[in-house]
Amino acid sequence: MILFVVYNMETKNILIKNVLILNPKDNDENNNHDHIEIFKGSVLIENDRIAEISSEISSSDVNKIIDGENKILMPGLINTHNHISMNLFRGIADDIPLETWLKDNIWPLEAGLNGKYCYAGAILAAIEMIKSGTTTFNDMYFFMEDVANATKDSGIRGCLSHGMIDFGDPEKREKEFKENIKLIKNCNNKAEGRIKTFFGPHSPVTASKELLERVRKEANKYNVGIHIHMNETQIEVENVLKTTGKRPFEYLEELKFLGDDVIAAHGVWLSKEEMNIIKNRDVKISHNPCSNMKLASGISPINELLEKKICVSLGTDGAASNNNLDMFEEMKFASLLQKVNTMNPQSLPSDMALKMATLNGAKSLGLENDIGSIEVGKKADVILIDVDSANMTPMSKKISSNLVYSANGSNVHTTICNGEILMENRKLTKLNEADILQQGNIAIKELIEAKEAEN
Amino acid sequence: MILFVVYNMETKNILIKNVLILNPKDNDENNNHDHIEIFKGSVLIENDRIAEISSEISSSDVNKIIDGENKILMPGLINTHNHISMNLFRGIADDIPLETWLKDNIWPLEAGLNGKYCYAGAILAAIEMIKSGTTTFNDMYFFMEDVANATKDSGIRGCLSHGMIDFGDPEKREKEFKENIKLIKNCNNKAEGRIKTFFGPHSPVTASKELLERVRKEANKYNVGIHIHMNETQIEVENVLKTTGKRPFEYLEELKFLGDDVIAAHGVWLSKEEMNIIKNRDVKISHNPCSNMKLASGISPINELLEKKICVSLGTDGAASNNNLDMFEEMKFASLLQKVNTMNPQSLPSDMALKMATLNGAKSLGLENDIGSIEVGKKADVILIDVDSANMTPMSKKISSNLVYSANGSNVHTTICNGEILMENRKLTKLNEADILQQGNIAIKELIEAKEAEN
Ligand SMILES: [Zn+2]
Ligand SMILES: [Zn+2]
Repeated sequence: MILFVVYNMETKNILIKNVLILNPKDNDENNNHDHIEIFKGSVLIENDRIAEISSEISSSDVNKIIDGENKILMPGLINTHNHISMNLFRGIADDIPLETWLKDNIWPLEAGLNGKYCYAGAILAAIEMIKSGTTTFNDMYFFMEDVANATKDSGIRGCLSHGMIDFGDPEKREKEFKENIKLIKNCNNKAEGRIKTFFGPHSPVTASKELLERVRKEANKYNVGIHIHMNETQIEVENVLKTTGKRPFEYLEELKFLGDDVIAAHGVWLSKEEMNIIKNRDVKISHNPCSNMKLASGISPINELLEKKICVSLGTDGAASNNNLDMFEEMKFASLLQKVNTMNPQSLPSDMALKMATLNGAKSLGLENDIGSIEVGKKADVILIDVDSANMTPMSKKISSNLVYSANGSNVHTTICNGEILMENRKLTKLNEADILQQGNIAIKELIEAKEAEN
Repeated sequence: MILFVVYNMETKNILIKNVLILNPKDNDENNNHDHIEIFKGSVLIENDRIAEISSEISSSDVNKIIDGENKILMPGLINTHNHISMNLFRGIADDIPLETWLKDNIWPLEAGLNGKYCYAGAILAAIEMIKSGTTTFNDMYFFMEDVANATKDSGIRGCLSHGMIDFGDPEKREKEFKENIKLIKNCNNKAEGRIKTFFGPHSPVTASKELLERVRKEANKYNVGIHIHMNETQIEVENVLKTTGKRPFEYLEELKFLGDDVIAAHGVWLSKEEMNIIKNRDVKISHNPCSNMKLASGISPINELLEKKICVSLGTDGAASNNNLDMFEEMKFASLLQKVNTMNPQSLPSDMALKMATLNGAKSLGLENDIGSIEVGKKADVILIDVDSANMTPMSKKISSNLVYSANGSNVHTTICNGEILMENRKLTKLNEADILQQGNIAIKELIEAKEAEN
């Protein structure tokens, strides 16, 4: 019993002393430049939650003290659109048209996937996220119970959905619901509550009207959110227009599918009417600038969405179309792309980019009571940034500027999720990095060999 | 005498064994996808040059052996447009219009600059470049002899020019020539040949016709190149049109200013006629995508320039408008920006981005006989990339893909310039990093205090 208490205290009580705390906040004023507050203080973590934030905290009852000198403490980053098992497919095919990418490269490899490989890809991605300061990801893919296992083992937080595709086939549809519902029943709130489950209708092009309508009903029944791809390419929008006579968001509005529990990835090609629907239904948009640029999908009108006070967060999309999971890079891409697209250097300022990658991410996943900012009572999902590095010196008064425009994931010094230290001084504490990298290399080698053997 | 020889052998003979060598090459075929060759081998460096490249090199006479296992050896990156002392101004003012940025922020601070501060900024930038794999930079600024000293002390290679601005004032013009010529006389080919000097007429807006005409004559006389800002913003082009009746490149063509020794930074707003002039005169273009996006200058038609076989290289511009000097990030921005701008995922493939950041950089600075690729007889400016990291696993067969789309500067393991190891396993060997970071912080603090005292 005593041993247990000692163990518990050693691992679960953490005091971060004298650190510059950067916190996103909501601002009712119409002022894009004031979304971040900065103050010096200490933060006490008890078990999985933030217990105290103040200028002086006694360190007498604390087992682990982290010196915050020359560090910035900020909320862990939230990546709201991913397919993390696709980390196996990093760089497998680039600089080619989307059709060739999918048909000749991704799909044949995906055909060989199984739970073991999806675990290998997911745990590889988890390492990459921990090392670049992401503590929560939103995922849609296959073999999601294996992704749940990787999430459990890694210590980070994940929202998991099965990518449901029926192309109108009732049998396939039935299978997809079984799969997603099994995921919900087996995994929701598991791993100390770090796992949430969602429904994952793939897109209005790949999922039928019947699938979409049933997803809405089942999501209400199971009280889980919905994760879907929307308006990523012009062709996709045209296809929906052709088959339904409506643009994708208008079509979903008609189906009574939309609600504040829907997170829509991409949203590149949006009409004014669709933006109004998104706003009225409080649908959340996950913006994926690197993926949209790399696949030449287009430029999402993020500036307009933000002006309408639509909740926009950031996602990297899968590593095969990015090709990394670095949310610092994603923030910079998001900001710079809006500036050049609007020809206005004031567009998407660094404070807003940081808020999109933290608090807006939390809201988009229905987790704003638990994560997204550093507040007493919230989960201890926080990261420490090392200020003493060549690409971060000097540190300007506007700290968000250095974080968004100068930093990359390698500036993350310490990553804490759910009160557990997952990385300290860039060393993983929970996972064996070399081992996992090797397993990832073996997995993709086997997948490619299997594909080539079939040809 | 013996001691000297031992010292010399220890530091100047390096064998890099069994490494994957990535090398840009020229391709006469009209094929954008074949600009990089990859082969496994060993590289022997003797003094400042590459002495041998082959599958087996005897290590008997070598003092330093680097194991190339799980590493990629590639040419050091070449940053062809910068103002490195501006590293002091990183993050000083962002998300504001260019006018405010210059008039209220940069210029008042620049007024307080002196040689000591410019050295502090330059050596800070040198550290950042060494840590992110850049071995050569092209610079235009003030107090350039102090920048030369920082270049000398840092071990990297620099092309230095004095930013010449006369706004038509003959007295100022005379001063500018004195300054740039003094730089040439005192610094050209100094620091074991690592320093080259250029003339630096700031731009056709800030430099008069008389200045530009004399620059051409003096550049011929001193046999040095010319570094100039061109067609960065629409306003700048309109100003030149208004005052000369011609677009900037047409104006310079009329002045007989242009030649293959001219490197023009930005080139965002270019007419077809100007592209033809650039092609005909073999003018080199330094593309600065981050700066152009961040300041909302616009998107340069790089795809068209490359199709015309114009030599395009990459630059970060100063840290105040980027806000870092990471050439890996710059390659990704360059490629992704062209893809989304042309709505074609095949635009600016990773091989071409790597070539722009290496061989094209060397050509742009007239240094293609010495740097830009790994060849026997060339200077030993090479970097080692660590493949064993979370953001680089798996390593696809197309190595350039991981380097351009997945990597950032922190994946650089070892940096060698002119045969000297400047960083090994991410530790600087020649410079005291902590000390230089501190000096940089002090410098900007003093500059801001001086500015505030004046108000
Ligand atoms: Zn996706
Ligand atoms: Zn410049």
